[in-house]
Amino acid sequence: MQTISAYSAIINEAISALTFPAGSLEGLYSPITYALECGGKRLRPVLCLMACEAFSGSCERAVDVALGVEMFHNFTLLHDDVMDNSLMRRGRPSVMAEYGVNAAILSGDTMLTLATQLTMKVDDKHLRRVMDAFNRTAIEVYEGQQLDVDFEQRDDVTIPEYLDMIRLKTSVLLGYSALAGAIVGGATTADADALYKFAEELGIAFQIKDDLLDVYGSADFGKPIGGDILNNKKTYLLLSALHSDFRQQTLEALQLTEAQQKIAAVTAIYDKAGIRETAQRAIEQHSQLAIRALDSISFSEPGARQAFADLCENLINRSK
Amino acid sequence: MQTISAYSAIINEAISALTFPAGSLEGLYSPITYALECGGKRLRPVLCLMACEAFSGSCERAVDVALGVEMFHNFTLLHDDVMDNSLMRRGRPSVMAEYGVNAAILSGDTMLTLATQLTMKVDDKHLRRVMDAFNRTAIEVYEGQQLDVDFEQRDDVTIPEYLDMIRLKTSVLLGYSALAGAIVGGATTADADALYKFAEELGIAFQIKDDLLDVYGSADFGKPIGGDILNNKKTYLLLSALHSDFRQQTLEALQLTEAQQKIAAVTAIYDKAGIRETAQRAIEQHSQLAIRALDSISFSEPGARQAFADLCENLINRSK
Repeated sequence: MQTISAYSAIINEAISALTFPAGSLEGLYSPITYALECGGKRLRPVLCLMACEAFSGSCERAVDVALGVEMFHNFTLLHDDVMDNSLMRRGRPSVMAEYGVNAAILSGDTMLTLATQLTMKVDDKHLRRVMDAFNRTAIEVYEGQQLDVDFEQRDDVTIPEYLDMIRLKTSVLLGYSALAGAIVGGATTADADALYKFAEELGIAFQIKDDLLDVYGSADFGKPIGGDILNNKKTYLLLSALHSDFRQQTLEALQLTEAQQKIAAVTAIYDKAGIRETAQRAIEQHSQLAIRALDSISFSEPGARQAFADLCENLINRSK
Repeated sequence: MQTISAYSAIINEAISALTFPAGSLEGLYSPITYALECGGKRLRPVLCLMACEAFSGSCERAVDVALGVEMFHNFTLLHDDVMDNSLMRRGRPSVMAEYGVNAAILSGDTMLTLATQLTMKVDDKHLRRVMDAFNRTAIEVYEGQQLDVDFEQRDDVTIPEYLDMIRLKTSVLLGYSALAGAIVGGATTADADALYKFAEELGIAFQIKDDLLDVYGSADFGKPIGGDILNNKKTYLLLSALHSDFRQQTLEALQLTEAQQKIAAVTAIYDKAGIRETAQRAIEQHSQLAIRALDSISFSEPGARQAFADLCENLINRSK
């Protein structure tokens, strides 16, 4: 197995090698290049490459499928940013801010079809299985986004509802990445499904960690600290506070209009109510479920189990 | 072969039979039902069913693929309406107007993936060929939409550029519909390609007819007469006038601010410059190219050639 940064470099190189028609269609394709070049963790394609290599000794065959999932993920970001009116993304203007709403919509659509084309670059024997998983996952991601939007209008969202939403919005795409890489790598159905389960649980831990870093992260996380609090975003932390004895105080703190005061007040409640620890426990629970899912898998590469476990550790212990 | 309305009824029935998750995901799926139920000509799926039946004696096998192209077409309408800020569609509020911009975006995305799922419901032996054509066509449609958007900002668009734009934005999807139906029906590659050519030329004739009806159609066309003129839309008619001796007068008429005055002035120029006849000639040229493309095809159904020719006649002679 290779290092995370080696897999990440393979993806970045493959992205650089993508070519699009220039000239009169620049308006359609420039936003795509812009969206892809800005990096990010490349977590999904890395998972896909690792999965392929773990079962076949090489990640070569999964590169196009990995690019496909990165393309898909970035398509969802373009459209999510329009829906949320988000002007910043990964420390730069979002595609919507840089190129306009219409470009973000139409270039996003194009990315979804490009992602499908990349995903289809598998052997015929894997085509239907990989594409069925890709389409099913896409539908789940839209459903997750819909639930996320609906939750904004509700003040009675439960923790299980929240977990189901982030499973759809975030985890299933990590699950798919691992599954597709495993299929292309020649894994058995049982092993591919178990690796899906690993990545799905990892995704839930990853998202709760994301919620935690919004409040307790360092300022170079790419987003200002407390952004979720300012937006009344229903995170794992906020929902935990709303379901604790501090519900009333939390609701009052959310009414504050001055930004720093509001962040300080909500954070103080989190501290008093032990929300940080609650979230930390949830992260550990889901990462343990992830690691446990690895137990039954017969990898062909000896270091594979450890590599996935290390990836999990890195993600839940990250500081940004 | 069956009548157009029989094929159309098969599609409407299949659309009614589609089921979506209700309950908490109604926000995602209601706009899809709304978009599909409102009808329209069903031209694309009808072409698809006809093509399948023409080569196999039954349209049964093409129903899912036909639904897929109708789903795809409606997805593009949802997003186009957002990009154009169109509040009306087929005489009713557009999805954007009825459910909001975010719903039009996210439900549109969902429709693209649903279209892909429907399109994949073909035998394994046809899967890659149909899906490759579907994806390539989708990319062309986005490129056509981008050119259409770009043309709004330009005053030097030529007729060949316009024809290339409508080929991408409209014709290739008709071509795909015929091709996919033909493939599923067991046509040879040469016959499927020739039927693509038929539908592609038909699509160009169809779009120029659409441009013509905006000015010379009856008021129950679904859109108010002269809408394209009011929006300075670069139609075949307007571009023909701009490339005639009446260019300067046309530019001046476009400056008029009073709606009925502007429509009357531009229409008067079209009349003087013989633009109606120019457009009519172009429609006939392209419909002849379409009919000629049928010559080389070996249909298994005796009435197929005539059925396609009749479809073409109906579309170019329609009054709304």
